[in-house]
Amino acid sequence: MRFLFLISLLSVFLNANALAIDGFAIRYDQGNLEVLNQQKLPHEKEWIEVNSIDEMIEIIQSLKVRGAPMIGIAAVLSLSQLAEQGESLENIQKAAQLLKQSRPTAVNLAIYIERILSAIDNTPDFKLAVIETAKQIYHEDVTLCERIGKIGADLIEPEEQILTICNTGSLATAGIGTALGVIKTAHVQGKKIHVYVCETRPLLQGGRLTAWELEENDIPYTLICDSMAAMLMQQGKIDRVLVGADRIAANGDFANKIGTYSLAVLAHHHKIPFHVVAPYTTIDPTCPQGEMIEIEQRKADEVRGAAGSFGKIIWSPLNSSVYNPAFDVTPGNLVTSYILDTGNWDRFSFLMHIQK
Amino acid sequence: MRFLFLISLLSVFLNANALAIDGFAIRYDQGNLEVLNQQKLPHEKEWIEVNSIDEMIEIIQSLKVRGAPMIGIAAVLSLSQLAEQGESLENIQKAAQLLKQSRPTAVNLAIYIERILSAIDNTPDFKLAVIETAKQIYHEDVTLCERIGKIGADLIEPEEQILTICNTGSLATAGIGTALGVIKTAHVQGKKIHVYVCETRPLLQGGRLTAWELEENDIPYTLICDSMAAMLMQQGKIDRVLVGADRIAANGDFANKIGTYSLAVLAHHHKIPFHVVAPYTTIDPTCPQGEMIEIEQRKADEVRGAAGSFGKIIWSPLNSSVYNPAFDVTPGNLVTSYILDTGNWDRFSFLMHIQK
Repeated sequence: MRFLFLISLLSVFLNANALAIDGFAIRYDQGNLEVLNQQKLPHEKEWIEVNSIDEMIEIIQSLKVRGAPMIGIAAVLSLSQLAEQGESLENIQKAAQLLKQSRPTAVNLAIYIERILSAIDNTPDFKLAVIETAKQIYHEDVTLCERIGKIGADLIEPEEQILTICNTGSLATAGIGTALGVIKTAHVQGKKIHVYVCETRPLLQGGRLTAWELEENDIPYTLICDSMAAMLMQQGKIDRVLVGADRIAANGDFANKIGTYSLAVLAHHHKIPFHVVAPYTTIDPTCPQGEMIEIEQRKADEVRGAAGSFGKIIWSPLNSSVYNPAFDVTPGNLVTSYILDTGNWDRFSFLMHIQK
Repeated sequence: MRFLFLISLLSVFLNANALAIDGFAIRYDQGNLEVLNQQKLPHEKEWIEVNSIDEMIEIIQSLKVRGAPMIGIAAVLSLSQLAEQGESLENIQKAAQLLKQSRPTAVNLAIYIERILSAIDNTPDFKLAVIETAKQIYHEDVTLCERIGKIGADLIEPEEQILTICNTGSLATAGIGTALGVIKTAHVQGKKIHVYVCETRPLLQGGRLTAWELEENDIPYTLICDSMAAMLMQQGKIDRVLVGADRIAANGDFANKIGTYSLAVLAHHHKIPFHVVAPYTTIDPTCPQGEMIEIEQRKADEVRGAAGSFGKIIWSPLNSSVYNPAFDVTPGNLVTSYILDTGNWDRFSFLMHIQK
């Protein structure tokens, strides 16, 4: 028995030492990196082995990995892999710059890359610095999500009907998620909530990913087309709107998935509380206001049709002229409160808070 | 030469006598009835021969034919076919009731069927009455669209950017359309307008049909997802919103394609003119207010995925719980004006007008 106990203790120690990451949508173990292909969910669960920075950039740009915190985490684990492969300091720094530019709107990516670069600068052992910082960022995000979940769930009354957009759960973060983390926490607390999920055209992260994640967590939900949210609000069926964020400017304006601004205006018109849910890593204090946030324009075929495990289809005329911003910007004056890992802040207290 | 001229004259006379209908989306000639399968547009142009009331009901319910006026026109031409086939008065009356119930929200269907039934009552020759009334309804709709087009186009300034939803053109009416008829007329007048087309989930009548119809008419347009309309308004890119209607209540509330109410709230927030465009046949004076309009709920798979000439695909979890109203109701106080065949009416004058 004593022998078995020692073996078990040793195994815990070894695992802790290896610090293998076995996440919901990303896995990392001593330089081996795998990501869940989110473009094929929910009908196919395909793990992709990642072996180079070019592969990771393609994966991020094609949205096989997405979600503001998760993009940043995937990028730094890719740098960690490079370090474990014995790449030079110069190559790691170059790779970091390439990854940073892979998607422009979410700020977490840039902030996490900067953390790696600054860790490299401050140590003689750059290899260890990259590996350890990447793991820190991952584990920190898990903790941030838990804190946000608890703070947000405190606001939720029993039997609330909550509207959300895009995917802000375990596919978008290292932990339980942001807006979806609040929903999961309230559900686990037994609050009997019901979730209305906007399908989130054009890439259907709500219909494909959030619907699936809610089913995995046994949380009751109803899937709707984005254009149906207004009617539900009109009928008094929405008690609260919870959305994530890709970048929050210093004045409280924020960028999030296209369709978020529409929900904010509709919630305002119907006097429904509208909350932004995000970790502090989503705040960009160097960005004074929403108008300065660069909005990524994506390919026309995303709007002309849809793609997934079923392949790619086009339903519009083949050469339709298309407008396809991936994000929109919601002004801070439409936000009821910011649910952050540091607390729940109304706009005024948020402005005071981030100036500190 | 004189002989050829006589032949040609005779042929014109015979055609006029037969009064064959050779429309954009429907054809009728002495009991032969064909409809364009709108579910397969724009990639496939399939004409379906219709031979029975059951077939027509299936065609209407599966949206192979759609659009408030067009549904009514297809239904009465189906009754005309029945009359030409020598069916009894009783069977025609029964068929009329079945057709009337095939879709609940658009009022034109009910009004047109009632016109046929009342024509039957007032004549000894019910066969001729059905055939002639059906043709009258068709040709009247062509004229109504032209009148609406001119009245609406008078409001449009050069180089306006106009937002629209669903399909309200030659696929939805016997003529140039309602909201899309205004757009076509302004375009023909050389006003150099640009159209933003909401794709109109779940059934994509904007992305599939309106985009195609605008291309057929060489009118510049940009296709967007429904959730992008708010961002365009925020950026000052929308000068006017034009929408159709399926039923206008006596107080000015109206039902139209799901997503219309959302656009009305957004237009109101951004102080953008919002117009309902419809023929008088869309007004239901027996319906006091929007809340009384029955809203059709459709199948869950429409929201779970998409269908078209490419087949049927599902991208959400297979058994996702879904909310799928085909229409929503916009309160009259969000309407800038009603563009009808009788004139352009603001809400107050509309209320005076329909009380006459």
